[in-house]
Amino acid sequence: MNYLEKLKAANQNKGSYLCVGVDPDPDKIPDQFEKSASGVKAFCEKLIEVTKDITPAYKFNLAFFEIWGCHGWKVLEELVSQVPDDTFIIGDAKRGDIGNSSKFYAQALLQNIDFDSVTINPYLGSESITPFIQNEGKGVFVLCVTSNPSGRELQDHGEPKLYIKTAQICQQLNQKNNVGLVMGATKPEQLLEIRKQFPDMPFLIPGVGSQGGAVDAAVEVCNSIDAGLINVSRSISYPDGQFPDNIRKSAQKYAKLFKK
Amino acid sequence: MNYLEKLKAANQNKGSYLCVGVDPDPDKIPDQFEKSASGVKAFCEKLIEVTKDITPAYKFNLAFFEIWGCHGWKVLEELVSQVPDDTFIIGDAKRGDIGNSSKFYAQALLQNIDFDSVTINPYLGSESITPFIQNEGKGVFVLCVTSNPSGRELQDHGEPKLYIKTAQICQQLNQKNNVGLVMGATKPEQLLEIRKQFPDMPFLIPGVGSQGGAVDAAVEVCNSIDAGLINVSRSISYPDGQFPDNIRKSAQKYAKLFKK
Repeated sequence: MNYLEKLKAANQNKGSYLCVGVDPDPDKIPDQFEKSASGVKAFCEKLIEVTKDITPAYKFNLAFFEIWGCHGWKVLEELVSQVPDDTFIIGDAKRGDIGNSSKFYAQALLQNIDFDSVTINPYLGSESITPFIQNEGKGVFVLCVTSNPSGRELQDHGEPKLYIKTAQICQQLNQKNNVGLVMGATKPEQLLEIRKQFPDMPFLIPGVGSQGGAVDAAVEVCNSIDAGLINVSRSISYPDGQFPDNIRKSAQKYAKLFKK
Repeated sequence: MNYLEKLKAANQNKGSYLCVGVDPDPDKIPDQFEKSASGVKAFCEKLIEVTKDITPAYKFNLAFFEIWGCHGWKVLEELVSQVPDDTFIIGDAKRGDIGNSSKFYAQALLQNIDFDSVTINPYLGSESITPFIQNEGKGVFVLCVTSNPSGRELQDHGEPKLYIKTAQICQQLNQKNNVGLVMGATKPEQLLEIRKQFPDMPFLIPGVGSQGGAVDAAVEVCNSIDAGLINVSRSISYPDGQFPDNIRKSAQKYAKLFKK
């Protein structure tokens, strides 16, 4: 199966566009877990155990593993290997470098750690993306519109706005159907407008949970191509209630909200 | 000492603006070193040993350590701890995320691994940079103009060009004298023009060794503030000749070229 087919199959099998963000923040994980690499590992194993029959995808944010140095990196490798095969796995690494360095990042993340997809920062242009899309079974979500406030500083620069230029570059690179866009959902009208201009690429949509954002527009742009992911991190990992039932219930709630 | 003072002292002590790029490419390290994390460690230890009395700074490119997974991350930690205290150490990580995630990247790289500076990708705006510049003794070099061909695709977008907007944001953030710019040297006239517009921030200048570029302009923009770094990776790590004398000779050659 190629990249887009694998994503579509995961969405179809679970009947939703949910992506569970794995961001084990040491300040937020329940008290019974040690604030260490092994505590993070135990917490994430439980998070995966109680959500894996619900969610089509996980997104691991590498910041929360790198704080534990080599130990955190090992935990990341072990956790990724525990995710079921039919589930789509994203390494939220936001990498991007000159071609020769990006080649090694791609090897580290798509081959050695067996992510299906990696998030990429496009500031260095297409050669930072190309090494990640050589194999049609693996691919990328490129940062296009991000949901954080200061995202507008550069992304809205120029005419057309920079994020449109980013999406155009990605569309040109999408010869193997393995390029998607990170598309913040805080402005639903923008999401629908970009889908109209770029009808083929899947979107990874953050910002719907704790950060606010528009559910209907997010589901609509996924439905239009039968593929996509709407990410929820904090609202699934740290909801009110008794652990780990609170996590499972929250995942069920979002899976229903993001129903395919 | 604050960030800029530490950089100036390193430049002053060694009398040059050289930065030795530590990019242990497994396809290029000499045959006597195993293509493994421990082979990379042994090669880099030798590289540091024969250049540490010459160079004011090292720049470690994380791509070449991440390919060895948790083992590579451990080697990186060990190597950084071996660099002499009076030497400026950059983690060339090109990180950049929303504020809460960037905070953890900053902790991982500036506190846990004791880098003096980290390279940052500005696509997500100022909140991705802020967590790295809280402590006046540590700081960043933000990607502004990069020396790779596809760097122009986004960086030259709009009017003024995007890279000018990036430099303006960095200037505003530079309240503690700990924000610098990555400034590719393939176009010397551009380098001089940007120095004129931004007279205070130190530049980290790649692209002078294997990638071509203009030595005189690079040295001039460093001399104008008595601080800065001109990075050479491949031309110092893998020159012709007998290892490790070839490395030492090449470092001496570049230190002379980039004389303060």
